[in-house]
Amino acid sequence: MNISQNKDLSGQFDINNYLEARTKIVNSALNKYLPPQNTKPPTIHKAMRYSLFSGGKRLRPILCLAAAEACGGTIDRAMPLACAVECIHTYSLIHDDLPAMDNDDYRRGRLTNHKVFGEAVAILAGDALLTIAFEIASKFKPTPRYPMNQIIYEIAYAAGSKKLIAGQVCDIEAEGKKVSADHLRYIHECKTAALLQCSVRLGGMSANCTEKQLKALTDFGYYVGLAFQVIDDILDVTQTSEELGKTAGKDAKSGKATYPSILGLEKSREIAEDLTKRAFRSIEIFGKKGVALNALAEYLLKRRK
Amino acid sequence: MNISQNKDLSGQFDINNYLEARTKIVNSALNKYLPPQNTKPPTIHKAMRYSLFSGGKRLRPILCLAAAEACGGTIDRAMPLACAVECIHTYSLIHDDLPAMDNDDYRRGRLTNHKVFGEAVAILAGDALLTIAFEIASKFKPTPRYPMNQIIYEIAYAAGSKKLIAGQVCDIEAEGKKVSADHLRYIHECKTAALLQCSVRLGGMSANCTEKQLKALTDFGYYVGLAFQVIDDILDVTQTSEELGKTAGKDAKSGKATYPSILGLEKSREIAEDLTKRAFRSIEIFGKKGVALNALAEYLLKRRK
Repeated sequence: MNISQNKDLSGQFDINNYLEARTKIVNSALNKYLPPQNTKPPTIHKAMRYSLFSGGKRLRPILCLAAAEACGGTIDRAMPLACAVECIHTYSLIHDDLPAMDNDDYRRGRLTNHKVFGEAVAILAGDALLTIAFEIASKFKPTPRYPMNQIIYEIAYAAGSKKLIAGQVCDIEAEGKKVSADHLRYIHECKTAALLQCSVRLGGMSANCTEKQLKALTDFGYYVGLAFQVIDDILDVTQTSEELGKTAGKDAKSGKATYPSILGLEKSREIAEDLTKRAFRSIEIFGKKGVALNALAEYLLKRRK
Repeated sequence: MNISQNKDLSGQFDINNYLEARTKIVNSALNKYLPPQNTKPPTIHKAMRYSLFSGGKRLRPILCLAAAEACGGTIDRAMPLACAVECIHTYSLIHDDLPAMDNDDYRRGRLTNHKVFGEAVAILAGDALLTIAFEIASKFKPTPRYPMNQIIYEIAYAAGSKKLIAGQVCDIEAEGKKVSADHLRYIHECKTAALLQCSVRLGGMSANCTEKQLKALTDFGYYVGLAFQVIDDILDVTQTSEELGKTAGKDAKSGKATYPSILGLEKSREIAEDLTKRAFRSIEIFGKKGVALNALAEYLLKRRK
């Protein structure tokens, strides 16, 4: 794959340093937004923190902050929205891992929430993270073009029954069934692309971006989000559990519809690369200001876990 | 109990007609806010609607609307907030009924959500109702004194890990244990009073109420909310499953801390009456405009299911 158009832009951009620095900033903000773990009742606050601070890559918040900067905004202003999305992502993982759902014992190399705190508390910890996402979002200072109503709608829509939750429902319903490539893309759009796209859009909105900028970010978020899930499917086949920090080969075992299972590994890789190229093109309008977004898209394509 | 001070105010107020009319209005609004049940993917939208339209009394939204009117506001303006709270209430019931939590087969005389749709979909339907609550709230038109940020914070706080969810966590943790009257009141405040109080406060906020009015509604919501749960505890002991539409005598069987189990039935009734009297007094400042709130508090005290 030729992604030289990105190299020109990114130049000396050091993605690993960037990710490390941004992860620290996001973790520190999340730590401030979350009640201390001895807050009454401690059980729930411990459980919320256990999953929220379990070494997540913070990709959604980092993308949100990068989008804000691409539009001339600041990471301080975007931070509540970046953290809100991360809380939603974490809640969705806790609930997905439950015995009634994917029944996973490990996540990011550690026991899943319900294995440590029991099912009841894990369900409630997920509920609490979903709820606090909106509390954190309420600390956002709206911009002239994007009132608070629109920000809340944006988050609730991406996390709701037509997107994130729809993806999980369809994912479960597709288990062991033959699924068309179109339907699989729909599942991936809902399950992964919607919230990732939302993160990027929220970043732009926090910077009071123009309509044209928002359109660019919307496309970028869609392509990167879809590519992300295609790569996730690929890694589930090609990597070991140790490399992933979660059970590998689970998709095949549970008869889950994935890109490799429907289109094969090689075709799946091509699709991921094509989607990433489209992501690059979407944000050409940002010029040098899009360097971090470009580097993030490239990083996500090449990641090994 | 002498609640004649209410009679003077309420006069000919017909609470049953009032409740019937208001329930219809709330149901119609909820029906508009919820995606049709054939919305893709139908499973989740059917499951959401199954529990949301299962004959709930709509007390929280009705209290919200009544509070708005007491402050000179309109029910149209308050409606998104009234409906948001009802979605949160319904999600909490779905999750409470799960096998990992209270493990209930019946609710309002019908099978619980997970008995019909399975555990996975029931968890997701709860998640989706919690999420859509914020989407619906985002349709609220903020008033000069209460910006959207504050409205969202209000809802997320009442539904969050320090209130509604704290109540459920402590309720589970208290099962089979000796609990002090103080701790039991704390549980009831979190589990029931917080969201009820929130409904009433949101109603006031939707009417751009004064600080003094908000204080009155806050007290009223607290007393009515606490009375509501004390009466719930009493009914669990004194009524049959048929009368309640849910399994009666469950609290005692599961070793749950309740007012009757700690203080006895008679003392519990006294407490409920005293709380209701305090509720009446809290809203004396509204004069005749408080007639519906008064009648609702009285109705809740005397209810048999």
